[in-house]
Amino acid sequence: MVKIGILGYGNIGKGTEIAVSATDDMELVAVFTRRNPETVTILTPDVPVVSVNDIENWKDKIDVLVLCGGSATDLPVQTPEYAKYFNVIDSFDTHAKIPQHFANVDKAAKESGHIGMISVGWDPGLFSLNRVYANAILPDGKDYTFWGKGVSQGHSDAVRRIKGVKNAKQYTIPVESALEAVRSGNNPELSTRDKHIRECFVVLEDGADAQQVEKDIKEMPNYFADYNTIVHFIDEEEFAANHSGMAHGGFVFRSGRTGLNKENKHIIEYSIKLDSNPEFTTSVIIAYARAIKRMYDEGHKGCKTVFDIPPAYLCTQSSDELLAKFL
Amino acid sequence: MVKIGILGYGNIGKGTEIAVSATDDMELVAVFTRRNPETVTILTPDVPVVSVNDIENWKDKIDVLVLCGGSATDLPVQTPEYAKYFNVIDSFDTHAKIPQHFANVDKAAKESGHIGMISVGWDPGLFSLNRVYANAILPDGKDYTFWGKGVSQGHSDAVRRIKGVKNAKQYTIPVESALEAVRSGNNPELSTRDKHIRECFVVLEDGADAQQVEKDIKEMPNYFADYNTIVHFIDEEEFAANHSGMAHGGFVFRSGRTGLNKENKHIIEYSIKLDSNPEFTTSVIIAYARAIKRMYDEGHKGCKTVFDIPPAYLCTQSSDELLAKFL
Repeated sequence: MVKIGILGYGNIGKGTEIAVSATDDMELVAVFTRRNPETVTILTPDVPVVSVNDIENWKDKIDVLVLCGGSATDLPVQTPEYAKYFNVIDSFDTHAKIPQHFANVDKAAKESGHIGMISVGWDPGLFSLNRVYANAILPDGKDYTFWGKGVSQGHSDAVRRIKGVKNAKQYTIPVESALEAVRSGNNPELSTRDKHIRECFVVLEDGADAQQVEKDIKEMPNYFADYNTIVHFIDEEEFAANHSGMAHGGFVFRSGRTGLNKENKHIIEYSIKLDSNPEFTTSVIIAYARAIKRMYDEGHKGCKTVFDIPPAYLCTQSSDELLAKFL
Repeated sequence: MVKIGILGYGNIGKGTEIAVSATDDMELVAVFTRRNPETVTILTPDVPVVSVNDIENWKDKIDVLVLCGGSATDLPVQTPEYAKYFNVIDSFDTHAKIPQHFANVDKAAKESGHIGMISVGWDPGLFSLNRVYANAILPDGKDYTFWGKGVSQGHSDAVRRIKGVKNAKQYTIPVESALEAVRSGNNPELSTRDKHIRECFVVLEDGADAQQVEKDIKEMPNYFADYNTIVHFIDEEEFAANHSGMAHGGFVFRSGRTGLNKENKHIIEYSIKLDSNPEFTTSVIIAYARAIKRMYDEGHKGCKTVFDIPPAYLCTQSSDELLAKFL
C-alpha cells in the first residue's frame, strides 16, 4: 500500500481524499492542516486530522505527501520545505515561475534524498505531456491550447474586486470557429480575442451602477480588454443555483506537416471535459503519487515533472497486463 | 548525432527516411534491403543501399536500426534476430501477438545487451499511451477506440480476393452518432455495427457479376458481415485518381467517473487526423529511436514499449527548455 498524507483540506485536499479512496493500492494515513484540527472534519472515517506543526513526527509513516495549497504563496514555500522530510507532489500552476520552483524543489529534494514532483494536474500536467509528445513527433508545426468551458478563478476574483460587485463567476469559453480553424490544418494565426470568449455572471451590491460595472469589467486591462466579454447581471438566488459548479475542460492541438515537400498535414487533438476540476486534477495527482513511490524505491531523487515519468509507473497493473490490455 | 539504419524500403522505410531528414540530431547511414541493392533508389543522396546479407558489418556504425517489414511474417523473425547486433525498433501491430513478440525480443536483446523496442506508431503506440494514462487517472470508466476515416489494408486485401474483383479499397469510417454518444459521458454499449461503417470502392474485372460481388463482400464473415457496408463500383481511372491516398485517423476515449457517489463524469478524448499514415507512423518511430539511443547510453537493455519511456527522452530539447516551453 502507498501511504498518502494530505496537507491542506480545501477542494484539492478533499479531491485527493476521494481519489485515494477509489484506489485499491493506496491508503490515506493523515490530513495535515494549518487550522485547529478539531475544526476540520474529513470524509474518511478513522483517519487523523493533525496540526501541520506536528508533521515532522510523521516522516516515516508517509510515502507521499500531497501538497494541496495555492500556487501564489503556499506552494513556493511548502514544496521545498516539506521535501526535506517527505516525497512530495504539488499542482503548482504558475507557468512562468515553474523553472524557479523546479530549482528550489530540486535542491531541497536532492539534499534530503527525496522526490519532489511539481506541477501535476491537467495544465500544467496532461496538457504539457501532450505538447511534449506531439512536438517530438511533429517537429514542424504549431501548438494551440484552448481552455474551457470552465471557471477561471483569477478572472472571477478580478471581477469581485470591482466596486459595486457582490459576487461573480467568470467562464472562459473557447470560440467554436477558432477550434474549427485549427482542425482544418491550415495553422491559422489566432489573436487572444479570436480564441476565447469571457462570460461573467455578476451579483450587484444594492444601489450599484450596472452600466459602470459592465464598463469596468470590459475595459479591465490584461483580464478582459483583449477579449469579447459578455456580462450578465443576476440575483443571488440564481447565482447559488446555477453557478456553484466546478466543471472545466480544454483542448490541446498540434498541427504539423511531414513529407519531402511538407505536403502532408497532420492534426493531433487532445481534449478533456470535466464535471469536477478538482476531482479530476487530484485523480492525476494520485496516479503520479503511485509513480513517485515506485521511483523513490528504485533510488531516484530530486525534482520530477510529468516529462520524467515512464507511463507504466502510473498504473497498478503489471507490465504483462499493460501489454495485453492496452498496447 | 543518432545514427539510423533502415531495413526494408517500402512505405515505412521511405517514411523513416523522410522523418530522419526532418531532424537536426539524426543521420541516415544506410538502407538495407532483401532486394538487389542496385535496383533500389532512395531519396537521400550519398547514403548507401546495402544487401541485408552484409548487415552485420554495420553493427558498430548504427545506433538504432528501424525495422520496416510487415507484422505478419517479417517482424516476428526480424526483430529478435537483429536485436542480436543492434538496438532495434519496430511497428509490430498484431495486437493479440504482442506478448509473445515482447518475450522473444526481450530475450534476444537482453542476451546481446541491446534495446529492442516494439509496437511503435499510433495504434499500437500513441493510442496505447492514451489508454494507459487515462486508465491510470480514471480507474472507474470505460475505453472506446474508433479508427478512421482511413484505409484498412486487411479489408482491402479481403475484397481483392473476391472473384470478379480487379482492384479495391476499403475505408473504415467511425459513425458520427456513436462518437457523440461517447462524448455525452453516458458510457453507451456500442456494438461493432454501431461504431464503424465500411465503405468499399471496387473495380470489377470484365464480365464480373456486380450483384454477386456486392453480396460476397457484405456477407463476408469477420470482415464485413457485422458491419453496415457500402459498396461503390468505379472504373480504374477513378480508382487511380481518388483512391491512392494514405490518409488515416482515429479516436481514443476514456469516459470515467469520480466522486464519493460517482456523481462526476469526465471525458478524455484523443484524436488524430493524418494525411499520410506511414509518414506519421514513422515520425513517431523516429522520436522513440532518439529515446532508445539515450536509454541505451544509460545502460538500459531488453524489450521496451511506449509505456517504458519517459516523455522527455523523445525530445531534442534540454530539460530546462521543456520546463520553460511546454510544462
